[in-house]
Amino acid sequence: MHYPEPISKLIDSFMKLPGIGPKTAQRLAFYVLNMKEEDVVDFSRSLMKVKRELQFCSVCGHITDVDPCYICTDKSRDRSIICVVQDTKDVIAMEKMREYSGMYHVLHGAISPMDGIGPEDINIPALLERLKDENVKELILATNPNIEGESTAMYISRLVKPIGLKTTRLAHGLPVGGDLEYADEVTLSKAIEYRTEL
Amino acid sequence: MHYPEPISKLIDSFMKLPGIGPKTAQRLAFYVLNMKEEDVVDFSRSLMKVKRELQFCSVCGHITDVDPCYICTDKSRDRSIICVVQDTKDVIAMEKMREYSGMYHVLHGAISPMDGIGPEDINIPALLERLKDENVKELILATNPNIEGESTAMYISRLVKPIGLKTTRLAHGLPVGGDLEYADEVTLSKAIEYRTEL
Repeated sequence: MHYPEPISKLIDSFMKLPGIGPKTAQRLAFYVLNMKEEDVVDFSRSLMKVKRELQFCSVCGHITDVDPCYICTDKSRDRSIICVVQDTKDVIAMEKMREYSGMYHVLHGAISPMDGIGPEDINIPALLERLKDENVKELILATNPNIEGESTAMYISRLVKPIGLKTTRLAHGLPVGGDLEYADEVTLSKAIEYRTEL
Repeated sequence: MHYPEPISKLIDSFMKLPGIGPKTAQRLAFYVLNMKEEDVVDFSRSLMKVKRELQFCSVCGHITDVDPCYICTDKSRDRSIICVVQDTKDVIAMEKMREYSGMYHVLHGAISPMDGIGPEDINIPALLERLKDENVKELILATNPNIEGESTAMYISRLVKPIGLKTTRLAHGLPVGGDLEYADEVTLSKAIEYRTEL
């Protein structure tokens, strides 16, 4: 309305992003106006590239620009362990830790009957296919520690029980660097239950 | 590092924007991944357009896609009043009010000896040229109500005094909808000083 058309269109685009309202969108759009041309060109190209060049790995479901992804094709990784996560961002969180060298399987969601999401709607059938072909010894069920994540883990664990596969779940307890005072009761009760001997 | 290249480049681009740190940039980049293709194309194009098609109006200094801008060429506006503001965003704020129908002059800054910004570094010479040519009766000095803005207003006001031009300054006082309790002392003292009779 009061803006020249190119800037009002950019404001609209920024407003489509999560957590960005009209004021922030306006501030960002005006900031772009004063950015270096090459930075804006990079930004514009990256947006298109992310949308056009990225896909999900046909093996594990992680986002990738080559298929299969760099994790699935990495010969140095341990193919006998698969870590099952809900989201591609979880893979990145795990990789940042630099301690896990097994494979991944991304579910792209969790079972949630309330939202009408069943086992067939997430990447579980592909996981079962993988278990048939690959020589897997352990399945780490690293779904989120909430109701949906827990029930998804439980569901998968029961599903693979007949195959005799070892399934594990990430430990519950106090976060490192956290404050006991601020821990919720459920976390605290888990921390007591799974206390370790020194 | 752990991200496919296109997404890590997009994260870098988002991080160049003000107020966006690594976590938010990651969240936004992953959000883009799931956006509708046409929205991403629009976003990407708008970025380029803002940078390539927008310029400053050669008359008033406001951002525009046509030169002179739509305000300077609007025949229905009152050409005898010029409102002097620091920033293009101030023009937009004034326009949103829908009560001012005069012209604008954008300084793109304020005099600030501390930062080495003198009268020649901001859009003041162009203002003086305009005053020579155009039939202006009043100059509203709407620079920001802080030290730099006040001294810029004072400077311009003294500069145009010999021409016998009427210069005015926006009123100080309590913001509408504000709380007296939270008003700072300077604002309150201005509000008392310029109190109006009912």
